[in-house]
Amino acid sequence: MDCALFLEKVREKKPLVHHITNWVTIYDCANIVKVLGAAPVMAHACQEAADMAALSSSLVLNIGTLTEELIEAMKIAGRKANEKKIPVVLDVCGAGATPFRDKKSFELLDEIKVDVVKGNVSEIARLAGEKVITRGVDAGSVDKDIVDIAASLAAARKCLVAVTGQTDIVINSKALYKVYNGHEMMSKVVGTGCMAASVIGAFAGANKDLAAATAAGLCCLGIAAEGAAEQARGPAAFKELLFDSLFSLDARTVKTRQKIAC
Amino acid sequence: MDCALFLEKVREKKPLVHHITNWVTIYDCANIVKVLGAAPVMAHACQEAADMAALSSSLVLNIGTLTEELIEAMKIAGRKANEKKIPVVLDVCGAGATPFRDKKSFELLDEIKVDVVKGNVSEIARLAGEKVITRGVDAGSVDKDIVDIAASLAAARKCLVAVTGQTDIVINSKALYKVYNGHEMMSKVVGTGCMAASVIGAFAGANKDLAAATAAGLCCLGIAAEGAAEQARGPAAFKELLFDSLFSLDARTVKTRQKIAC
Amino acid sequence: MDCALFLEKVREKKPLVHHITNWVTIYDCANIVKVLGAAPVMAHACQEAADMAALSSSLVLNIGTLTEELIEAMKIAGRKANEKKIPVVLDVCGAGATPFRDKKSFELLDEIKVDVVKGNVSEIARLAGEKVITRGVDAGSVDKDIVDIAASLAAARKCLVAVTGQTDIVINSKALYKVYNGHEMMSKVVGTGCMAASVIGAFAGANKDLAAATAAGLCCLGIAAEGAAEQARGPAAFKELLFDSLFSLDARTVKTRQKIAC
Repeated sequence: MDCALFLEKVREKKPLVHHITNWVTIYDCANIVKVLGAAPVMAHACQEAADMAALSSSLVLNIGTLTEELIEAMKIAGRKANEKKIPVVLDVCGAGATPFRDKKSFELLDEIKVDVVKGNVSEIARLAGEKVITRGVDAGSVDKDIVDIAASLAAARKCLVAVTGQTDIVINSKALYKVYNGHEMMSKVVGTGCMAASVIGAFAGANKDLAAATAAGLCCLGIAAEGAAEQARGPAAFKELLFDSLFSLDARTVKTRQKIAC
Repeated sequence: MDCALFLEKVREKKPLVHHITNWVTIYDCANIVKVLGAAPVMAHACQEAADMAALSSSLVLNIGTLTEELIEAMKIAGRKANEKKIPVVLDVCGAGATPFRDKKSFELLDEIKVDVVKGNVSEIARLAGEKVITRGVDAGSVDKDIVDIAASLAAARKCLVAVTGQTDIVINSKALYKVYNGHEMMSKVVGTGCMAASVIGAFAGANKDLAAATAAGLCCLGIAAEGAAEQARGPAAFKELLFDSLFSLDARTVKTRQKIAC
Repeated sequence: MDCALFLEKVREKKPLVHHITNWVTIYDCANIVKVLGAAPVMAHACQEAADMAALSSSLVLNIGTLTEELIEAMKIAGRKANEKKIPVVLDVCGAGATPFRDKKSFELLDEIKVDVVKGNVSEIARLAGEKVITRGVDAGSVDKDIVDIAASLAAARKCLVAVTGQTDIVINSKALYKVYNGHEMMSKVVGTGCMAASVIGAFAGANKDLAAATAAGLCCLGIAAEGAAEQARGPAAFKELLFDSLFSLDARTVKTRQKIAC
């Protein structure tokens, strides 16, 4: 598998990635899509959510700062995306932290066809029905093997599951990818988790094989992070460098550095 | 025309620029006003929109992530600004992308007196009644000459029209400015279009000649962008440098570098 | 007093700091908590505000872009925090600018027990019942001595009052701290005031002596700002450096540089 080919498709097709996301990292979600050469658009009014989704190549939903109204807009956009066969990525940011987040996550999964569920270990475990100890939006601890948990969620929801962490897991009923790229600096700054979902959105909007595209997207983000971490004096510099590193990521670097098992 | 004189007025008068804007670039809109030496304020509750507008030197409206409620707040603030003769700048971010955006853009233009309509080529064309091919919030393609289109919008709405792009066009019934400053890096990072509207707000809040102030603001932003691009390794570094470049922009640099035709 | 000991507690206990804050600086509020080694969480839906507050070590409320709904969520979260004895920090961002801001600030102070009221000179003076000349969210002018004003507010509300400015004042009925650290560059970039409230939230969530923790937090932020300013070419670079400077702030630097009087 050559992740650079998937990145090339993103740059070539410039997919429009519609987001309904949170107010904390909304800029970062938009900008990570932009530096990939794709086009972000953020639109959450219920009156235009379907129209914007219909124009788009993929739809990224993120419940980080959810409200009842925002979830309603996500459902409207999601239904239109389903109708148009546009891939839907759901970042279950903070699932497990409050009953409201869990309830709304399950509602989204029940009412729309989500193509990629993305979360950290405890978020994915929570959606798979496991008991988890979580606190806010950071990864909590889980007892069972995360690959098994992710596989069971993928089977139950007939979707792809992407678990981000030191090793990223991408799994559905047919494929399993493990991505070893990345850097611990990603966990020292707010926003990299949300950006990962947006990167998946961009890759999913430009490539047909959803599982491979998702893995390739996480791989490219991880490689860019490694490059950024080499030069960064701290997490804020790292985040800026991450954007620029992804912007200028070339095929050769991807080929040399990718650490992906399938 | 010496654009530096207009910048000097901004720094001297420190206008308060009230924004009702989008959730993606709201920080950048505030900060670009701040680094100019002016004072940004963001307030979108309907209960205080008029009071805040009344305190302000200019009002910047941006429909990037519009909702019904936000448009309502814009109308309230806009009416108060009209009453107080405070210049109103409207960034029609994403006009043409969905019927909701178009409808609300026209409502704003009908219900309040907008002094400066700012947009990219396809947004302005859409408001002028042209058919455009647009996708999300990026500039789409337009058949006719943009100067003619902008002139017709300016005539129809009795306002100033600012079209941002490789060459910025500033036009009303009496004047036409073309600003050639700027750098393509501005199109590689999210936020520069919104910042342009905020810069116009700051210049319009501190200077009497609205057309000249708008052109001077875009010119100064463009010159700062050129300086930033010379040092930037990528779009994220560029955006940071753009703020600092504008913060320390001096009259001599403006005079030497300005490329403006009127 | 050794401010480094308070910082150490933050890094050791990693308090979860729940925010209901404004849309302009929400990312900066989250990230300043993150670089301190603590965990930010932003959740403003009324349906989960209490649950999230109950999980948290402290609650930071900021009225910068208040709406009726957001204030309602603040009250819900605040009441739960009060019940659980979790410290509540209120940043009265823009108090004095509009009647709506004043009304809602007083409502919050009346309906929940706020442990730390944080503001600039004119915001605090306004809440203390003084007449102030303010404009937007920047500090306005005040006639009386700010220590006297802050003391009267602290007495009236039985709370700690933190006034940020060239010298930060931290005062309650028993203690008075003056923090001389900081740099004027903090006033040249949007967000540092809001960040100060978030820093107080992190320090209050990890330390028992609220007054000392608040002073220590402001002191550490000020020292980090001094370090950042030494290297920054402008306000945007300064802000990035501020995060990284705080991230890597060590006990020795704090001890050497702290300028605090109590």
